[in-house]
Amino acid sequence: MTTINDIAVSSTEMGDRIERLGVVGRGPGGGLVRFLYDDAWRAATDLVEGWMRHAGLQVRRDAVGNVFGRLPGTTDGERTILTGSHIDTVRSGGKYDGALGIIGGIAALAALKERAGRPRRSLEVVAICEEEGSRVAGNLFGSRGMLGLTSTAETAQLTDADGIAVADMMTRVGLDPARVPTAARRDVDHFVELHVEQGPVLDDTGVQIGVVTGIAGLRHQLLTVCGRPDHAGATPMDRRRDALQGAAAMALMIDDVTRCSGSPAVATIGQLQVLPGSVNTVAERATFSLDLRHPSDPVRHRLLTEIAGHCRIIADRHGLAVEITDRWEEPAAQMDTGLQQLLADTADDSGVSWSSLPSGAAHDSQLWARHVPTSMIFVPSVGGRSHCEAEYTPLEDCVRGATMLARVLYRMAY
Amino acid sequence: MTTINDIAVSSTEMGDRIERLGVVGRGPGGGLVRFLYDDAWRAATDLVEGWMRHAGLQVRRDAVGNVFGRLPGTTDGERTILTGSHIDTVRSGGKYDGALGIIGGIAALAALKERAGRPRRSLEVVAICEEEGSRVAGNLFGSRGMLGLTSTAETAQLTDADGIAVADMMTRVGLDPARVPTAARRDVDHFVELHVEQGPVLDDTGVQIGVVTGIAGLRHQLLTVCGRPDHAGATPMDRRRDALQGAAAMALMIDDVTRCSGSPAVATIGQLQVLPGSVNTVAERATFSLDLRHPSDPVRHRLLTEIAGHCRIIADRHGLAVEITDRWEEPAAQMDTGLQQLLADTADDSGVSWSSLPSGAAHDSQLWARHVPTSMIFVPSVGGRSHCEAEYTPLEDCVRGATMLARVLYRMAY
Repeated sequence: MTTINDIAVSSTEMGDRIERLGVVGRGPGGGLVRFLYDDAWRAATDLVEGWMRHAGLQVRRDAVGNVFGRLPGTTDGERTILTGSHIDTVRSGGKYDGALGIIGGIAALAALKERAGRPRRSLEVVAICEEEGSRVAGNLFGSRGMLGLTSTAETAQLTDADGIAVADMMTRVGLDPARVPTAARRDVDHFVELHVEQGPVLDDTGVQIGVVTGIAGLRHQLLTVCGRPDHAGATPMDRRRDALQGAAAMALMIDDVTRCSGSPAVATIGQLQVLPGSVNTVAERATFSLDLRHPSDPVRHRLLTEIAGHCRIIADRHGLAVEITDRWEEPAAQMDTGLQQLLADTADDSGVSWSSLPSGAAHDSQLWARHVPTSMIFVPSVGGRSHCEAEYTPLEDCVRGATMLARVLYRMAY
Repeated sequence: MTTINDIAVSSTEMGDRIERLGVVGRGPGGGLVRFLYDDAWRAATDLVEGWMRHAGLQVRRDAVGNVFGRLPGTTDGERTILTGSHIDTVRSGGKYDGALGIIGGIAALAALKERAGRPRRSLEVVAICEEEGSRVAGNLFGSRGMLGLTSTAETAQLTDADGIAVADMMTRVGLDPARVPTAARRDVDHFVELHVEQGPVLDDTGVQIGVVTGIAGLRHQLLTVCGRPDHAGATPMDRRRDALQGAAAMALMIDDVTRCSGSPAVATIGQLQVLPGSVNTVAERATFSLDLRHPSDPVRHRLLTEIAGHCRIIADRHGLAVEITDRWEEPAAQMDTGLQQLLADTADDSGVSWSSLPSGAAHDSQLWARHVPTSMIFVPSVGGRSHCEAEYTPLEDCVRGATMLARVLYRMAY
């Protein structure tokens, strides 16, 4: 009889595959650009499809371009446990974000097939076509496809920065937009995702595996501060209504309020535009983005209310107006507690150190968790770096993560 | 014998001309766009040339396109007292900035010719081709032409945003770049400029005429703050090196240091760019402009040193680097004290209220003052508004300013 300690993935193969997938879409600057349905995306899906075949899995592509490798079950063969992650990247992304969950998933299923044979419930690994929203505001387009939450109409409406509709991109890579609804499936009972942490907690504490408790909810807002354009030389300081000064005060306040609320609250101002944008004119208008996240939706809402109140006070004090517009909201997701326990027990049984932690980053699991019991396994990101070329996880950690994934799947499916 | 109270300009004519010149270059938004050598500029110079002729002045254009109207003198006829201002505008500029000095100068010379006949020293009014730097970074191109401080080579090098060289623009409007050096003149003994204040001091205090003591020196700098791009969800607040937060802290500090130094110090951050500029990535780089002005160069230098020191402290505190680059410097200029006294006496003799004040805005007079005794007369700007369509000075104030100009010129030239 197989015990979980018999199950281990191939380190050599995983290391080789991380490097091979890690050059598909590599730009002159070194970072990856692998966007939905582009040439690099096509090459990457062909590559992982080959690896799935090589592992002896049943390979299939669905109508939105998700690629599946299936290890069919016996008794409960019609019900499926799904693992995997996304194959697309952010602009100038790293080799591990998304890719590890696919490579690790294939390695896990290959190891299970070899060491434990055919499972009771079917196991599948998926290379999800889109998660990052880099080319289109897809909002987890690949997972939505599997969950029946997209449509042919959406593919006609959704466009990239060049105005190309998703439907046209699909046609170009041999997918038929009319078939989008057929991507929906009803047989998935669980989703389990292996991913790099993208933050510094595991690396800082030297813990090997993260058992994700939940994924932070987030809201994106656009804040517009309106003042008055005045002559930079002739207008005394006390006569100005300077939109940039107002925005700067709001930025510091947002940072302060978020820090005072304590970890894991995070707030980011990643975009800021000033109008008219002349060296010698006082800013009439400053527009900035706010990305605020917290694993507790009520805490997040309270922080946003507090920030909005302070923004209005700052605006009043500077003789400015401020307008706050909501752009996107993703509620927090809780990972299944039973699966968290199973993962923790499996780590303990394997002599692997673990800790529970929330995810600040958004993931496919955020959406899956609203529909089926879902679990995420984190491995350390060195220095917490992610969404950049410097993203790095030692091979040993990648292999340990994939082994934990294989052992958890073994306990779930055999 | 003529006394100064006999000399008065025509209110009807001035009002009419302000409105007529005030539509040349008017865009759909209402503000004026009259850039060096463009079609509106051409129409405007033709218009003022006609008004000069109508006043009986000797009209001439120089090699850079400055338009002169001359009232020749008798005894000292070869020496010239020059008045006037610039005919170009900022983008979406107002009807008074520059234009008033030309229209008022023509009105003054017309009144003098009519009431006092031929002067001892020659008087000239000039419509200066360029001051604002709107189309090219001309740095007072028109006045530099008259002072022999530009060259044919510069016209080939200096280009607008579309890459069009000044030399090509000149050819298009019938000017020969090779003749640029001939614009230099050695006969100008004094420069007197009538201008709207562009700030709120006269309007606030209800004083009719401003006797300008000096023009603030200015420095333009570019400050680049470098941090680290990180994932907006996965990076805890205390692990960030956020360039935007550093820039915001610097912006507030600059405002604070400048206010603490007291009026007339002014500092403006009119431009700010963030990279990579993604909603969900911590800012790696924030670049902003600083425009700092003070009528005392030593005070201005001390403020800049203080600001640079604080910027480094803020950068250190945030784990950031900051780089400060000088882009442009214009030293402060002192208006001639004898001419200030003459203007104050003339106002007193005319029963006109006046006060001394520095100019925060740059002017052609700033350059002239380094070469010849120079004087500026300010009239109120309602609400201190300028460099925008809302720029406004009541006709009564415009006429009073032109009358003061005429009376001062009378005392200087007759």
